[in-house]
Amino acid sequence: MDRVRIAVDCMGGDHGPSITLPACRAFLDSHPDVDLLLVGMADALAPAASWPRCTIVATTEIVAMDDPVEIALRRKKDSSMRVAISKLKATATSPALADVCVSAGNTGALMALARYLLKTLEGIDRPAIASVIPNEHGEFTTMLDLGANVDCTAEHLLQFAVMGSALVSAIDGKSEPSVGLLNIGSEVIKGSEVIKRAGDLLRSAGADGHLNYFGNVEGNDIFKGTVDVVVCDGFVGNVALKTTEGLASTMSRFIREEFTRTWWTKLAAIIAMPVLKRFRARVDPRGYNGAALLGLQGLVFKSHGSADAYSFGRALARAYDAARNRLLDQVHDRIVETLQAMPANPGDVPVRPAA
Amino acid sequence: MDRVRIAVDCMGGDHGPSITLPACRAFLDSHPDVDLLLVGMADALAPAASWPRCTIVATTEIVAMDDPVEIALRRKKDSSMRVAISKLKATATSPALADVCVSAGNTGALMALARYLLKTLEGIDRPAIASVIPNEHGEFTTMLDLGANVDCTAEHLLQFAVMGSALVSAIDGKSEPSVGLLNIGSEVIKGSEVIKRAGDLLRSAGADGHLNYFGNVEGNDIFKGTVDVVVCDGFVGNVALKTTEGLASTMSRFIREEFTRTWWTKLAAIIAMPVLKRFRARVDPRGYNGAALLGLQGLVFKSHGSADAYSFGRALARAYDAARNRLLDQVHDRIVETLQAMPANPGDVPVRPAA
Repeated sequence: MDRVRIAVDCMGGDHGPSITLPACRAFLDSHPDVDLLLVGMADALAPAASWPRCTIVATTEIVAMDDPVEIALRRKKDSSMRVAISKLKATATSPALADVCVSAGNTGALMALARYLLKTLEGIDRPAIASVIPNEHGEFTTMLDLGANVDCTAEHLLQFAVMGSALVSAIDGKSEPSVGLLNIGSEVIKGSEVIKRAGDLLRSAGADGHLNYFGNVEGNDIFKGTVDVVVCDGFVGNVALKTTEGLASTMSRFIREEFTRTWWTKLAAIIAMPVLKRFRARVDPRGYNGAALLGLQGLVFKSHGSADAYSFGRALARAYDAARNRLLDQVHDRIVETLQAMPANPGDVPVRPAA
Repeated sequence: MDRVRIAVDCMGGDHGPSITLPACRAFLDSHPDVDLLLVGMADALAPAASWPRCTIVATTEIVAMDDPVEIALRRKKDSSMRVAISKLKATATSPALADVCVSAGNTGALMALARYLLKTLEGIDRPAIASVIPNEHGEFTTMLDLGANVDCTAEHLLQFAVMGSALVSAIDGKSEPSVGLLNIGSEVIKGSEVIKRAGDLLRSAGADGHLNYFGNVEGNDIFKGTVDVVVCDGFVGNVALKTTEGLASTMSRFIREEFTRTWWTKLAAIIAMPVLKRFRARVDPRGYNGAALLGLQGLVFKSHGSADAYSFGRALARAYDAARNRLLDQVHDRIVETLQAMPANPGDVPVRPAA
């Protein structure tokens, strides 16, 4: 791949073009090998008309942050989100126009449209949402699913493990990322029936060399960096993610409150400012924005709806890395390798002791 | 109740008597209306022989932190944990000798023994573990279940809501604590099938005035203090709790690392010390130790296994408050009121819009 072509849904998110355009402009400047397709309302995108390496794709509709999935899917056929995703697909008359798509819009609508337009990869029943959380090693733990699938089977969790491994291989260059199953204890007998069966499937895939399976992990292991990839269903993952965001915000607020309590603490805050700034940078969620929608026949990245320009730029960077490292091919190859080697009916997999 | 009698499993936890005894001694000094039953190995408890308002109950076995439930239940019939719980029960020859029991031992064994010895309250299928998490209002959010039940039905979640409400009423004195259902979005259509049905049951109980039902809450609402009681299944609750503990510990570590990076940051740390201490006190998990095992015909509290003497003292204090405020009677009354007013077959409850 010589150049990376990113289709950007410029209207998505809480702030739309007022943050997506400045982020795109900065990204173009720092990435000479990037071409952008800016998708959105013609008026809103007018400022970008003269930018280099940009193509403006005018659309007439916007998927609102609170639009039900059905509206996005059935009614708004000329939405910026839908058109941006469609650029990943080849048509009868033209090859695909973009390598990856980024949107800060409504997650449910984005997943539904991406699934409808792109279809899932063969061997994958359900796409999953994967994102990264900073850990104590100064690295990142990749976690999935973060909310696309509330009711999962053991087979779905195995598929998530395969996709998560491929994601980490592609983006971080680790050849055999370790995978943990999020559970409520480290022993194999812990957890719900689905989780126990998922553990069996994962152990089996690990024993056969298709996955670097670590075993069960618990909530605190996400931050300890015990494994590279944490696998869970979308309900648990979403609760864990929002719990994380909530606690980080509450702790930051407590710090602020304590440092602004009296004139003396305010003075202490001034002296401690450089330290507090470094701390803030380490836990700043803006720095690791950009979740991957995995398992589709196309690369779609989701930015936080409330992202600012810096944060949206991070999502563009993750999308760029994924495209540059051929994430789609890597996921596809991993799936073929792992899932085809599994028994046709995964229910037949014998329970094996951990390798 | 004139006096509060607490049965303490002195052998439980990672540190046993070396922390439980000092905590008991301090608690006796600060609570003149308390009598303690100190349960454990005779040698270990010898230092307490001369303490006032103490009865030593010598036992010959200890449930280890990693003992399987079956060992605790079937083999170690003279364990300190089992004997401490048994003091809550009247026998043919004597009334109950304690009002509440506290242990820092193995959670699975404690729940299994408590359930076996005490039985559940009528109307409750499964006991739940409830604990508190500090929120932004400077108050506490009560959360249950935190790990006793990995596979829950909608009816179980309704029972948890009733028990959690009674707990908050009894301990915090709030007459109508608000209850939220932990979900992945605020809309009623969100979540798994079980969660959606639980939402229907809770809305119905709320509309009938049996519960102050708020609606769905998300992971970040735990810390925002959106509701007094957050209800979830034990898998999700346990993951959320351990995620919380993990992130709090990681953030504290980041703060420590940043403040010890250079001589200059160390100087800043000295100046900021009083502020950092206040901050640490606000997020210190030791301060809110003590989870309630709810739904049993007896009051049992669980301390963190790694508790120090201060923290174990907090668990004693929560147990004391619960007994003093007749938590058991309150839970019982609430259950009678709420569950008996529900239709015999909760599956028949019509879906109602939020009140």
